[in-house]
Amino acid sequence: MNYKMMGRFIAQILTIEGIFMVPALILSLVFGESGAMWAYVYTVAAIVLTVVVLNLICRGAPSAFYAKEGLVCVGISWIVMSLFGCLPFWLSREIPAFIDAFFEIVSGFTTTGSSILTDVEALPKSLLYWRSFSHWLGGMGVLVFLLAFTGEKGKGFTMHLLRAESPGPDVGKLVPKMRTTASILYIIYIALTVINFIFLIIGDMPVFDAVCTAFGTTGTGGFGIKNDSMASYSPYIQNVTTVFMILCGINFSCYYLLLLGNFRSVFKDEELRLYLGIIFTAIVLIVLNVRGYYSTLGETVRHVAFTVGTLISSTGYATTDFDLWPTFSKSILMCLMVVGACAGSTGGGLKVARLMLLGKNLGRNIRQTLNPRKVLVVRNNDRIVDEKIVANTSAYFAAYVMIIFISFVIISLDNFSIGTNFTAVLACFNNMGPGLEQVGPTCNFSAYSNLSKLILSFDMLAGRLEIFPILVLFSGNTWHRK
Amino acid sequence: MNYKMMGRFIAQILTIEGIFMVPALILSLVFGESGAMWAYVYTVAAIVLTVVVLNLICRGAPSAFYAKEGLVCVGISWIVMSLFGCLPFWLSREIPAFIDAFFEIVSGFTTTGSSILTDVEALPKSLLYWRSFSHWLGGMGVLVFLLAFTGEKGKGFTMHLLRAESPGPDVGKLVPKMRTTASILYIIYIALTVINFIFLIIGDMPVFDAVCTAFGTTGTGGFGIKNDSMASYSPYIQNVTTVFMILCGINFSCYYLLLLGNFRSVFKDEELRLYLGIIFTAIVLIVLNVRGYYSTLGETVRHVAFTVGTLISSTGYATTDFDLWPTFSKSILMCLMVVGACAGSTGGGLKVARLMLLGKNLGRNIRQTLNPRKVLVVRNNDRIVDEKIVANTSAYFAAYVMIIFISFVIISLDNFSIGTNFTAVLACFNNMGPGLEQVGPTCNFSAYSNLSKLILSFDMLAGRLEIFPILVLFSGNTWHRK
Repeated sequence: MNYKMMGRFIAQILTIEGIFMVPALILSLVFGESGAMWAYVYTVAAIVLTVVVLNLICRGAPSAFYAKEGLVCVGISWIVMSLFGCLPFWLSREIPAFIDAFFEIVSGFTTTGSSILTDVEALPKSLLYWRSFSHWLGGMGVLVFLLAFTGEKGKGFTMHLLRAESPGPDVGKLVPKMRTTASILYIIYIALTVINFIFLIIGDMPVFDAVCTAFGTTGTGGFGIKNDSMASYSPYIQNVTTVFMILCGINFSCYYLLLLGNFRSVFKDEELRLYLGIIFTAIVLIVLNVRGYYSTLGETVRHVAFTVGTLISSTGYATTDFDLWPTFSKSILMCLMVVGACAGSTGGGLKVARLMLLGKNLGRNIRQTLNPRKVLVVRNNDRIVDEKIVANTSAYFAAYVMIIFISFVIISLDNFSIGTNFTAVLACFNNMGPGLEQVGPTCNFSAYSNLSKLILSFDMLAGRLEIFPILVLFSGNTWHRK
Repeated sequence: MNYKMMGRFIAQILTIEGIFMVPALILSLVFGESGAMWAYVYTVAAIVLTVVVLNLICRGAPSAFYAKEGLVCVGISWIVMSLFGCLPFWLSREIPAFIDAFFEIVSGFTTTGSSILTDVEALPKSLLYWRSFSHWLGGMGVLVFLLAFTGEKGKGFTMHLLRAESPGPDVGKLVPKMRTTASILYIIYIALTVINFIFLIIGDMPVFDAVCTAFGTTGTGGFGIKNDSMASYSPYIQNVTTVFMILCGINFSCYYLLLLGNFRSVFKDEELRLYLGIIFTAIVLIVLNVRGYYSTLGETVRHVAFTVGTLISSTGYATTDFDLWPTFSKSILMCLMVVGACAGSTGGGLKVARLMLLGKNLGRNIRQTLNPRKVLVVRNNDRIVDEKIVANTSAYFAAYVMIIFISFVIISLDNFSIGTNFTAVLACFNNMGPGLEQVGPTCNFSAYSNLSKLILSFDMLAGRLEIFPILVLFSGNTWHRK
């Protein structure tokens, strides 16, 4: 492990965070929120000081970057970013306990949207902005941002980082150069955000609300700025949000292909088809199951489509208390929580691509058992999938289930119900937001103990970074000096 | 698919079942239970008729046996065996609904122990005997019995069948000849049953109770013959049962090694160490968690050890209502349900060997990510594990989780709580017996709809036969004529 390189890297990440905190600082001035203003000033000062010190200490760091360094740097930098990112909440005393503030910002950066706040509307607006913006920055990833818009290009740097921060079993290169790929992704992301904002404004949403909602939607985050999340907004705004949540759960490379005019590839993309198929099936099944819960079919479809969209894309807004739905609907919702969005999107969860790969590998295995002498392969979009990716996906899945079970056991020390604990872990680990029962859409995570909040924060980070960058931090192998 | 061969094979299985039904028939005569007696007579007659017809139709079937035929025959024969095995319950009108009777006997043969009966003690004794005996026959497997004690030895027959019916990621050959291996396994099994019976008799248990309990314990089944399962028996009997449940969850090859005097290998066996380690850790954690629930530490340890033993070995007896324990304890119990016993034992669940393999493969994957150029392998007991077994275990795990989620969604149509449905699936699929909440140790499965009972029966069979023999029945590949 090269600590100087890591230090220099963290300094870069903190610089970006500090720059992005300035608009929030300005907002606090505009709205005359002096408590928040001073909190931002102190935080930015702390960031500047840390960056200067780190740059002094870590002069002359090498720029060669290996797989191991990439993973470790991504894991560490997200933790450091969260430690500084939670300071505005804590220093302004709006969230008095540090662990709560940390939980809240980790939930923000990881686009989870689980909150410990019981009264969101009481928060100063500049803090609401920072909270929603953290979704946007975390959605596409701060390291991808670094790649896309700064001059950093150490040997192996780009590939290993993009691989560590981008969701999905494999990193799709849009163009041969990773840096250009990162830029294209961010440009598409910004465009989606702006279009979403415009659609919200057309629906007469106040500008501040529209900015925050667009951040939370395109980042598939889910922090609402109202206590009832999205329930009090107009059906039009809810429907716009449904569409954009689902859109942001699609692999962004599909949008690039669309821009290139390659409609055929997008139309035939197996992951996209499965993703949309799951959404459609889930909506139909739940609408049939909750008939009679709402006055009209239109209202039923609106709430169901919103809930399905918000859970499969791992956003986590709510327009209705789906914890009151029958168990069949809730079971489907739990499955959606696990499945999650497409690889290469801003959404979380296991990812549709992985589910597909696991299913295909299982099918291959059954055929192999029946015909032991044939050599069978796994295909995706008519191309043979590298056996290494299949094996990695299987190992990933094992890690995924193990982390869920271990977290579930530890947080159950707080003695909430099994359904609460299980969906709390699912909601955090898959970066979803609300769970069911005592962590349902009308509740929050404040009742959990500090230990549980730490575990759930770990789950959120592990879920967002797809486990390995966080898991390697606990491996002796990582810290050994050879 | 060679249907003649399958027919001949099913006839053999039914013959064994018919022969084993005779003691139950005699018992019904001894106890003067005329309803049950006639039910047995009709059932045995039906079996004899079917066997004769099958043997007539399937004359001249080839004896060459391939992997595919092995899997399919195992799957089909367990279903046929259950269809005939449930007839005594149904024909005697003791369980009036056929689907309930089917659920009950599937639960018996698969050593699950989940029951739809609300009043077990009302059942005629000969039916109680058949119910408990089904655990014993299913525990080591009826096909293994066929291999061990009949002259059947078609080409490839032995290997493929033993592989399909024996639990665990790999079949350990004790001796070069598979048939001798099967005989050794059954001899050890019978010895364990007899020793267990003797220990129970020493504790003044009535002979009938001791026979049924020994069957249920060594088969790791869990059908009790009292309404309160094992709660009203003496602490001595409970402790004996604890020990034997845990013993029967150990890989039977360990006992063979002990008989050969190879203590060193047994002592160093990694799976055994992990199994005992999990049991010890679980007992300590739960005892700490439930302190104050019982009057003395001795009583606490007794109930906790019994419950941990019954769940990890997938037996399913109860001495106390562990559904009243705090959530932390219940979460640990749920993990034990998933882990299950050792490979090559009579217990169910994922198996300790698979868990170990998944964990080691994950560790290998992390090290591989950190050192991409090294060639790393997975080892077990100092031997390199074949990559094929690692890949199969991963695919198995994916199938395992998928079946749990799909079953969970379907049975949730009955609108029980999430905790109930989830643990009902875990309990059936892992051949455990009781779950939590509405299917807890003091409750039963009678409230579920017929659809749910069918799904749970499927889960029990899929769990006992380790998924593939049941899954291939649904594969188009299986039934295609080339």
